[in-house]
Amino acid sequence: MNESSALLTDRYELTMLQAALRSGAATRRSVFEVFTRRLPDGRRYGVLAGVGRVLDAVENFRFTTAQLDWLADQKVVDEATLEWLRDYRFSGDVRGYGEGEVYFPGSPLLVVEGSFAEAVLLETVILSILNYDSAIAAAASRMSAAAGGRPLIEMGARRAHERAAVAAARAAYVAGFGATSDLEAGFAYGIPTTGTAAHAFTLLHDTERDAFVAQVESMGRGTTLLVDTYDLGEAVKTAIDVAGPELGAVRIDSGDLTLLAHRVRRQLDDLGADKTRIVVTSDLDEYAIAALAAAPVDAYGVGTSLVTGSGQPTCSMVYKLVARAESADPDAPLVPVAKRSAGAKASRGGRKWAARRLDAEGVAEAEIVGTGPVPGELTDRLLHRDLVRGGEIVGREPLSAGRGRHLRSRAELPISATQLSRGEAVIPTEYLAFG
Amino acid sequence: MNESSALLTDRYELTMLQAALRSGAATRRSVFEVFTRRLPDGRRYGVLAGVGRVLDAVENFRFTTAQLDWLADQKVVDEATLEWLRDYRFSGDVRGYGEGEVYFPGSPLLVVEGSFAEAVLLETVILSILNYDSAIAAAASRMSAAAGGRPLIEMGARRAHERAAVAAARAAYVAGFGATSDLEAGFAYGIPTTGTAAHAFTLLHDTERDAFVAQVESMGRGTTLLVDTYDLGEAVKTAIDVAGPELGAVRIDSGDLTLLAHRVRRQLDDLGADKTRIVVTSDLDEYAIAALAAAPVDAYGVGTSLVTGSGQPTCSMVYKLVARAESADPDAPLVPVAKRSAGAKASRGGRKWAARRLDAEGVAEAEIVGTGPVPGELTDRLLHRDLVRGGEIVGREPLSAGRGRHLRSRAELPISATQLSRGEAVIPTEYLAFG
Repeated sequence: MNESSALLTDRYELTMLQAALRSGAATRRSVFEVFTRRLPDGRRYGVLAGVGRVLDAVENFRFTTAQLDWLADQKVVDEATLEWLRDYRFSGDVRGYGEGEVYFPGSPLLVVEGSFAEAVLLETVILSILNYDSAIAAAASRMSAAAGGRPLIEMGARRAHERAAVAAARAAYVAGFGATSDLEAGFAYGIPTTGTAAHAFTLLHDTERDAFVAQVESMGRGTTLLVDTYDLGEAVKTAIDVAGPELGAVRIDSGDLTLLAHRVRRQLDDLGADKTRIVVTSDLDEYAIAALAAAPVDAYGVGTSLVTGSGQPTCSMVYKLVARAESADPDAPLVPVAKRSAGAKASRGGRKWAARRLDAEGVAEAEIVGTGPVPGELTDRLLHRDLVRGGEIVGREPLSAGRGRHLRSRAELPISATQLSRGEAVIPTEYLAFG
Repeated sequence: MNESSALLTDRYELTMLQAALRSGAATRRSVFEVFTRRLPDGRRYGVLAGVGRVLDAVENFRFTTAQLDWLADQKVVDEATLEWLRDYRFSGDVRGYGEGEVYFPGSPLLVVEGSFAEAVLLETVILSILNYDSAIAAAASRMSAAAGGRPLIEMGARRAHERAAVAAARAAYVAGFGATSDLEAGFAYGIPTTGTAAHAFTLLHDTERDAFVAQVESMGRGTTLLVDTYDLGEAVKTAIDVAGPELGAVRIDSGDLTLLAHRVRRQLDDLGADKTRIVVTSDLDEYAIAALAAAPVDAYGVGTSLVTGSGQPTCSMVYKLVARAESADPDAPLVPVAKRSAGAKASRGGRKWAARRLDAEGVAEAEIVGTGPVPGELTDRLLHRDLVRGGEIVGREPLSAGRGRHLRSRAELPISATQLSRGEAVIPTEYLAFG
């Protein structure tokens, strides 16, 4: 999709723009940051995903004539603001964590710098993308850790908004899944797609044998036959009878998967089909996957729990103004700012950098967040990459880069990171040099 | 958005198509139904939303040349199947519950009839839409019941995938919300949009007073001022000082909302601003809304919990083949079919109709689901509408129709339906005439 992202925006971004244009504050140089105050309950690390999609959204944040006409017609903003929006394109800078990177409370995930006017407009769409994609990536990462080396297939499209499903497939791929059922995710992002048949295909034919014959004739013996429409044992027998021991795989989509996997494995082996793999796909989540570790399962298909973030369908990332110029003068110094009201919503002012501190064994021991210049003696790994410079997208990378980054950064975490039990963030966030 | 929906589809729909084209079964007349086996834990009714979006998706389910080239390049299906897809458009019939209608386990929400080939392809995108939109509508309905007559504003865009957010605003509007912050939802669906300013606007200016002056000058005294950036009491005082007692509203976005609403109401009244309304917007869900019933609150803004379905971010709707012809002959009789394996996934075969039975006082007492012809003596309200006939979309209606239908059908339910406590489905589903 390459269409305008400009109206994927809360109305108040535009009304703030209008008021700031009028007050003259709109041109004050400003720094907004994306961060989260906490991880979801019990989670030990977060996983950033959606960075590439954010870059697309920034690039496509242009108002079309039809959109401007609608804004005028609805009197969302005044004429002067419409004129300003007509020429809008982001001309500032964005730095941030790389796609797939793990994160912790307070990690400055994205730092957006520009005039207030141009930076405030991006709030909603940036948060939409990062909050959803990172929720999926966090769940996917737990599942891929639980699966050990066994392949994972994302197949949750039917349980998510149809476009969210595509983003979910992408985020899952970043966090360790190997394939998706979603064709659009293949088309748009080059993610490997997979899939063979549903129960409807068996029910359509007069007999299960007819269905298996039709499928094998069409897709070859390497296909995956779904064996739980009627009687599982009969189906496995028929499957090997039809396809021979070269059958690629059988899929089990219901019942006690541990028990059935053992039974089907034995049956397949007895039939000489010891290379035929077993794929299981019934309401799996990271706990069910972990519980199947000792069962003879060759691949997992995961749907609902993946695309809903396994109980945490969004993150709590926010986009906050942390510093702004004293005046509209382009050389005016930046002043740190922060909400100060009572309650849990206070935040730390000032533009931030971040680094991950590793111990002598290369195990992460702290997330270091600082303001001001990075100390010259700092030996920790800095976490920000340049994403946008003077309005130009400079941070694009192939999805495989995010995939690799995720595996590396997760591997650096203390072992307890991938325990499924509830716990605190696996490393602390330490703040340096706050004034 | 008017672009192709054809790849928002699981790969196995296309591979089943290929195998069925080859076996000859593809042309068998088939009936698929969308239903759910259960409501989410503790919920007493479901709310169908997304019907209008399904009709758009059916209409836009055409493969573009670029999509076909990609399918060929990836060898997803063979040449004969690609040729078939090139001319695809759905030419069958769809009947179903109206948008906004309440539903129960087993309700046949959508009945899709056509050749196996043309009907199977629609599975994924139909389920994506209905499962997401109905999850949001169910949450929105609980919130709107809890809010009594007070207005509700949807403002969760930043916590959902950017396109899902638009669908969420639409579903919330069907189920009783009055407005949304999401501009695209206004642009695409005509939903009223609202919004004024965030904390960033106050922080941008040198003082809170400067910010309030700028906002009131730009948006008039009827605007809503956000009063919890620094000190709430000071901010309310400044707000009335700047805008006068004609100030439209103040918004509180953090803290103990019951306590603060009372305090702010008293302060506003003391300042002579007894018409100035109070809007609250901090992490609300249906329980928090209900708890604020006795507080002097005039409107609720709801974000995260709405767009994530308040703990139930998806429904468990499935799309199942329930009947298909004995042969490819267009006059061949339909045979009911159903998965029969062990476990909870068995289903009832046969094409279904549905009706709601009301008692003498007009209170719903049962969901009646039957196969075969509708009994002539049936006096219960039939629930299916024609949506697509011979491939032509005939069921479009304005969003206001779904909004009205939801209010009416919810009002018919027993009073316990809108209790927030956990419980069973508020009326039973009764099956008639299953052979």
